[in-house]
Amino acid sequence: MSATGVFEFPLQVRYMEVDAQAVVFNAWYLTYFDEAFAAFMAARGLPYEKMIEAGFDVQLVHTDLDWHGALRWPDQVRVAVSTARVGTTSFTLDFQTRRDGTPTCTARTVYVVIGTDGSGKRPVPPQLAAALGPPTPLRAP
Amino acid sequence: MSATGVFEFPLQVRYMEVDAQAVVFNAWYLTYFDEAFAAFMAARGLPYEKMIEAGFDVQLVHTDLDWHGALRWPDQVRVAVSTARVGTTSFTLDFQTRRDGTPTCTARTVYVVIGTDGSGKRPVPPQLAAALGPPTPLRAP
Amino acid sequence: MSATGVFEFPLQVRYMEVDAQAVVFNAWYLTYFDEAFAAFMAARGLPYEKMIEAGFDVQLVHTDLDWHGALRWPDQVRVAVSTARVGTTSFTLDFQTRRDGTPTCTARTVYVVIGTDGSGKRPVPPQLAAALGPPTPLRAP
Amino acid sequence: MSATGVFEFPLQVRYMEVDAQAVVFNAWYLTYFDEAFAAFMAARGLPYEKMIEAGFDVQLVHTDLDWHGALRWPDQVRVAVSTARVGTTSFTLDFQTRRDGTPTCTARTVYVVIGTDGSGKRPVPPQLAAALGPPTPLRAP
Repeated sequence: MSATGVFEFPLQVRYMEVDAQAVVFNAWYLTYFDEAFAAFMAARGLPYEKMIEAGFDVQLVHTDLDWHGALRWPDQVRVAVSTARVGTTSFTLDFQTRRDGTPTCTARTVYVVIGTDGSGKRPVPPQLAAALGPPTPLRAP
Repeated sequence: MSATGVFEFPLQVRYMEVDAQAVVFNAWYLTYFDEAFAAFMAARGLPYEKMIEAGFDVQLVHTDLDWHGALRWPDQVRVAVSTARVGTTSFTLDFQTRRDGTPTCTARTVYVVIGTDGSGKRPVPPQLAAALGPPTPLRAP
Repeated sequence: MSATGVFEFPLQVRYMEVDAQAVVFNAWYLTYFDEAFAAFMAARGLPYEKMIEAGFDVQLVHTDLDWHGALRWPDQVRVAVSTARVGTTSFTLDFQTRRDGTPTCTARTVYVVIGTDGSGKRPVPPQLAAALGPPTPLRAP
Repeated sequence: MSATGVFEFPLQVRYMEVDAQAVVFNAWYLTYFDEAFAAFMAARGLPYEKMIEAGFDVQLVHTDLDWHGALRWPDQVRVAVSTARVGTTSFTLDFQTRRDGTPTCTARTVYVVIGTDGSGKRPVPPQLAAALGPPTPLRAP
């Protein structure tokens, strides 16, 4: 896959993820986005293990989510992932759960880059910037 | 408890909530806030069952979270809950996880009020507005 | 798929499922088996919705698990499912998580059949017995 | 607390733990028992950190669960924990969830003792045996 555009990660809602209202409980969306993030980075040639080996890691500092609809068991879902912004020591990704092409939740997450040596924040390494590619946000800033 | 001010809900981090980095995985914060929301409403005299009996329910439409630090097992945590805004058909609550008085995550969540009869959005009922009380946000708008 | 033999359900370990020891926390195995059960029934021509429509449901009354090894993120896993026994009002399934063909956990679960009308236990309906097929246990009784 | 008898750990069912049938999904029981295990060891004077410091850890190799009833949100639950057996390199604990004194699930779990140095199985250390105390099983063998 080329380092541009929107990546899509397929998943199926699990029965245990729905609550007494028979819809996916809100916290599971963050789990979906975390899985999609890992798959996105791997698809862009920089899987998590490779990041760690290169001496850096990422930390989630902000996320916001807007729900437009509900997911139910056993829905087939596609999670869209796209680079929204690449900053000096942080980057931002957009996420969207889609069922039959219809968005049910749109989210934005900010990650900071840290050294694995405990040295704290560090600049976004060139290989990470290359993997993230040019920003193509899924929503307006 | 009077219907004003900041409510605090105690919880203990579970071992299964920490990830390979030994910190609480992000999605669990939404679970913490959901539990704290239910306890807050009960403390304000309007437990969930009573809401349902009165013919209305709430739906989460937006949440945003900012992490300032990490939680670890078996941390004792207090989750602060406070009314941030009461609108026409929606209301907003602020949440904050605190360990030894130090915030580790601050969040804001918007709920819309819906009828249990499937009629969709409806105005915030007076008994709900009374339970929510005057806004005392935990953070700036 | 014919109603005989061992069914296999593929899944990938999620990052949030591993604990501070970097191995999948024990409770997630029950989630894996639940998903594999639903997929097994669907593959045998009796998906959950169809069961409910036919007026019956199943309830888990017993499960036992033996761990032979650990799963790690992001392991690709296959969950084997097989009918172990079909009784009068209950049936038993065997489950096994396998990574690269090597078992990491073997489990056995007993389900009772109940009416959706609240009438309690009822005999295993012929269509369910047909879907379960002849027993081919994954382990000795 | 003295190193004998049945220990009880209080917990409250979380909304997100119930499924579309409005009962606690089976996997959460293993989470409850894990929390109760940690609390039990701490109450007996050997919290997890102390075990690790002493150079050993435990690994779950078997568990079996029998459900007699269901738990619902927001049930107040007490989890009973008791030593069932202390062997050469393993030990067994019994667990039981109780609501208003009525058991809803009874379980038995076998743990093996391992060195934290990667040396594999090792004999149950005297301090662990002392903490476990004399067996008082919650159910017949």
